Amino acid sequence: MHSFWSVGKGLVLLLLTPALSAAQSAAPGDIANTVREVQQYGFAIHILAMLLLGFGFLMVFANRYGYGAVTGTYLVVAAGVPLYIGLRASGVLSAEAVEPHSIKALLLAEFAVASALIAAGAVLGRVRLYQYALLAVVMIPFYMLNERLVLDGGLGVTKGFTDAAGSISIHAFGAYFGLGLAVALTSQRQRNVEVTSDAASNRFSMIGSMVLWLFWPSFCCAVVPPGQLAATAVNTVIALCGATMSTYVFSSILGKGKVAIADIANAALAGGVAIGATCNVMPISFAFAIGLFSGALCVFGYAFVQPRLQRRFGIVDTCGVHNLHGMPGLFGGLAAIVVLPGVAAAQLTGIAVTLVLALLGGLVSGFVIRATGMKQSGYEDAEDFANTKEQAVAAVS
Amino acid sequence: MHSFWSVGKGLVLLLLTPALSAAQSAAPGDIANTVREVQQYGFAIHILAMLLLGFGFLMVFANRYGYGAVTGTYLVVAAGVPLYIGLRASGVLSAEAVEPHSIKALLLAEFAVASALIAAGAVLGRVRLYQYALLAVVMIPFYMLNERLVLDGGLGVTKGFTDAAGSISIHAFGAYFGLGLAVALTSQRQRNVEVTSDAASNRFSMIGSMVLWLFWPSFCCAVVPPGQLAATAVNTVIALCGATMSTYVFSSILGKGKVAIADIANAALAGGVAIGATCNVMPISFAFAIGLFSGALCVFGYAFVQPRLQRRFGIVDTCGVHNLHGMPGLFGGLAAIVVLPGVAAAQLTGIAVTLVLALLGGLVSGFVIRATGMKQSGYEDAEDFANTKEQAVAAVS
Amino acid sequence: MHSFWSVGKGLVLLLLTPALSAAQSAAPGDIANTVREVQQYGFAIHILAMLLLGFGFLMVFANRYGYGAVTGTYLVVAAGVPLYIGLRASGVLSAEAVEPHSIKALLLAEFAVASALIAAGAVLGRVRLYQYALLAVVMIPFYMLNERLVLDGGLGVTKGFTDAAGSISIHAFGAYFGLGLAVALTSQRQRNVEVTSDAASNRFSMIGSMVLWLFWPSFCCAVVPPGQLAATAVNTVIALCGATMSTYVFSSILGKGKVAIADIANAALAGGVAIGATCNVMPISFAFAIGLFSGALCVFGYAFVQPRLQRRFGIVDTCGVHNLHGMPGLFGGLAAIVVLPGVAAAQLTGIAVTLVLALLGGLVSGFVIRATGMKQSGYEDAEDFANTKEQAVAAVS
Repeated sequence: MHSFWSVGKGLVLLLLTPALSAAQSAAPGDIANTVREVQQYGFAIHILAMLLLGFGFLMVFANRYGYGAVTGTYLVVAAGVPLYIGLRASGVLSAEAVEPHSIKALLLAEFAVASALIAAGAVLGRVRLYQYALLAVVMIPFYMLNERLVLDGGLGVTKGFTDAAGSISIHAFGAYFGLGLAVALTSQRQRNVEVTSDAASNRFSMIGSMVLWLFWPSFCCAVVPPGQLAATAVNTVIALCGATMSTYVFSSILGKGKVAIADIANAALAGGVAIGATCNVMPISFAFAIGLFSGALCVFGYAFVQPRLQRRFGIVDTCGVHNLHGMPGLFGGLAAIVVLPGVAAAQLTGIAVTLVLALLGGLVSGFVIRATGMKQSGYEDAEDFANTKEQAVAAVS
Repeated sequence: MHSFWSVGKGLVLLLLTPALSAAQSAAPGDIANTVREVQQYGFAIHILAMLLLGFGFLMVFANRYGYGAVTGTYLVVAAGVPLYIGLRASGVLSAEAVEPHSIKALLLAEFAVASALIAAGAVLGRVRLYQYALLAVVMIPFYMLNERLVLDGGLGVTKGFTDAAGSISIHAFGAYFGLGLAVALTSQRQRNVEVTSDAASNRFSMIGSMVLWLFWPSFCCAVVPPGQLAATAVNTVIALCGATMSTYVFSSILGKGKVAIADIANAALAGGVAIGATCNVMPISFAFAIGLFSGALCVFGYAFVQPRLQRRFGIVDTCGVHNLHGMPGLFGGLAAIVVLPGVAAAQLTGIAVTLVLALLGGLVSGFVIRATGMKQSGYEDAEDFANTKEQAVAAVS
Repeated sequence: MHSFWSVGKGLVLLLLTPALSAAQSAAPGDIANTVREVQQYGFAIHILAMLLLGFGFLMVFANRYGYGAVTGTYLVVAAGVPLYIGLRASGVLSAEAVEPHSIKALLLAEFAVASALIAAGAVLGRVRLYQYALLAVVMIPFYMLNERLVLDGGLGVTKGFTDAAGSISIHAFGAYFGLGLAVALTSQRQRNVEVTSDAASNRFSMIGSMVLWLFWPSFCCAVVPPGQLAATAVNTVIALCGATMSTYVFSSILGKGKVAIADIANAALAGGVAIGATCNVMPISFAFAIGLFSGALCVFGYAFVQPRLQRRFGIVDTCGVHNLHGMPGLFGGLAAIVVLPGVAAAQLTGIAVTLVLALLGGLVSGFVIRATGMKQSGYEDAEDFANTKEQAVAAVS
């Protein structure tokens, strides 16, 4: 229990951030800035919907771990957002300090938390509740380091690196960080526990899936220049449409005419992951092709790559984040090389640095988290929540 | 299975659309255009929420067909949006070509898909999964033809035709197209299968209902002039409030004091359907009256019209789209005649053309879809999805 | 049944409001006004999501009363919004008349309805369906009186009263009004009925919780000056993060290592309630502290205050609105005294008037509602809805 308090320590930074009066943040900007702020405010709320309802309920497919999935989601967000805003305001770890009372700070924090939720998906159900908050706390400094080195050019060798909506720096980083965590955070007993789902849990999961799908354009548009709004939004929707169609086709082929609802819930989103790197610069036909390919890649990941990762390396990836965020993220990052001239070196360097930082960071963080305790069971709410067995629970005592 | 690929063919058009660089679409517009784009972007996301979470989960009331309802919804959207954007960019079938990398293209595509989802609701559970995608593909050309002839004045005799948010051209068109489909796509065996629901499935359905209700103002505001935003939004909310109240009253009267939750989920939305034609020009008191009447109309449709359609014509309308979108849509279109002087001829002509095109188009499309195969069972996920029977499904293998 | 029609009477006012042509409301404003309208339109939709999906589904935790919870929510909204807009347009009860075809009218009506939904949460499951609509109708005049006296300075002694997003005037008013209602609307038999929940009903409840959490910034930003958007949004998110973390910690401590999912669903939101009074003027570190404290306060409310209220005063508060909206609302209002110089007198006067009006108004309204009939059972859909027992319900007859 007391390990939870390490979250508190990280947040001291935030509390020491000089308090800003509303007057300061209300400085009169010109109308274009106001419009931009209104627009980005909308994106920030949409992305918050993706983080909570989207990631949270997509993970409710695990039918004996629904309380854990949504509570874990809440804790990752609640620990991660203040920590990122606080650290970013301090200027530590970052190329530039960002005013905490700004929509930009909120958007950047949400991106970091998205990456943390992806990582959490890999170890879902195998950590204690407080460890979700701890995961966000230990991961975010690594995420910020990668953000500084690769995205903000801190290495000096990633000029031209293209990743407008984080195929590499958010999705792939989160997925490979999660695989690193999984190495440290899976007991032998948990390796033998099946994750189960049922008709109700899969319907909840589809709510998460659809929330992610429909708000994805805002994730992609959040930090692209305002003039690219329409192209980015349309490309994102078209890529998602492509992934949804190829998911259906390949899931149906692999299932000999029967579709897996888990494929539909997850792989339909792979188009959003893969288009992230180049959403603002792609022709529409390429966006569709990227969607088609990434959906197929994700379905094959669930069918062939994930079982091998588990058998050969003992890596249990509860939600299959490697299939949805890992491989499609890398594919999206590599696709930029084909479309944009002269970015190959920067792109490959950026991907390499991201992968190394993610895997090492995840491994180290996994052992740090493990040191605070291990969950006994696997994918069971009963260990963490009161009243999970009996059907009747008094709401008023 | 292979009939699915016909979707692909329709999309070739889109792939041939000249690729647009982001630079082109980022041409500096003046600030008013930027504000309009920001605003319409918001509408586009809200309508996407209605299409996926809204229509998708409203249809999850069918408790043995929840996977089919949400997957079918995904497939209609995934096939319909790229096809409409592609066809519309080509200028074929339309009064004017619309730049594909634009929010306008996205909004118009979403309207077309809304109509297709309404039609799909009539045959829900009686077609194979790939046939949902096929339904969007064969329907959208008919929809665009109607859009061109009636809305965009292609006939030359609908000048003054009033249908700001598609009571006639989206809702009624979709509903009567769906009835046409149902004639061709219902086997005798399916006519004898009951659609069942339960406490859980009706709660999911209420999520869809509320998502539709709350985002409906954005559906109505999407293409009205910016200066009419407030009037349109308030009228839409007031019409929905009216329909919700009369739904409760009449469902309670017909149920002798007991309400049908299916009435609440569906008929509460009839106000949004009916106000669509005149949402931007109605006085607020008329908006309320339209809501009250349309809610009652929809409740009576479920109780009296739908059983008769089934008994007398053998038309099975799974979701009762004729009650929610058909009759309230026509009523909304006719109400314009009372409020606006001089539109009677245009309005009646437009409605007549829409009805003929919808019913004939639906019938033809139904036989085209039927030629690719028939679903054996009715309202059963088991035929299309793996692992629907057993409760325990391994998510990681 | 016929008592429902009293709703209709209240609405006659609205129907008499002079009809406004769209042309009037489309008067050309300058660009800044347009931007403000676009922004506030977004807030209005977000708050509508909170009212329907948020409050509605948070209350679905009661597993035998899910239909009632969502239908009751629909009826409060459907009766409350038109009534508020109509009364407010008439100028009766208010400091200034507000044009009904305006986003401002819609936002103010939504605030009033939020307060009514909070009050309804206290008596959830113990009133007949039509009484939810009646509750909105009898409560809204009291709410408007309080709004006029306290918020709009009608008393003359609340100058400086600080309550930007309604900690006192919306949340605490609704909660104490609800306690007043509960005194009149709880039969001895109902006092002995337990409210039960289960795994499915708590998942639905978490959907409501997350919808409220994620759109809360729009609730707080809705009427603050545009220049304070960023500070308000960030403060709100940070306060919610603080409440979520302390909820986890204190629920875990009280549960000896096991968390109550009802605490997570509810208390995580207390930060949004408490920050409402000062969301636009707080330094970020104070916002975090307010969140931490209010989450704890709410958890302790569920554990210690609510059982005492019930034992000592016989007040049954179904959803525990006193814990979530009552105490955190008062705390938020009092916190303003610490942060802002010179508001102590206004703040204390405003709180006192609000409490008195809420408790008395609730008590009076409770007896008025009671006069129209009493629900026999407690927290049972079966009394109000058809087909709640059998699993198979024909959707098409």
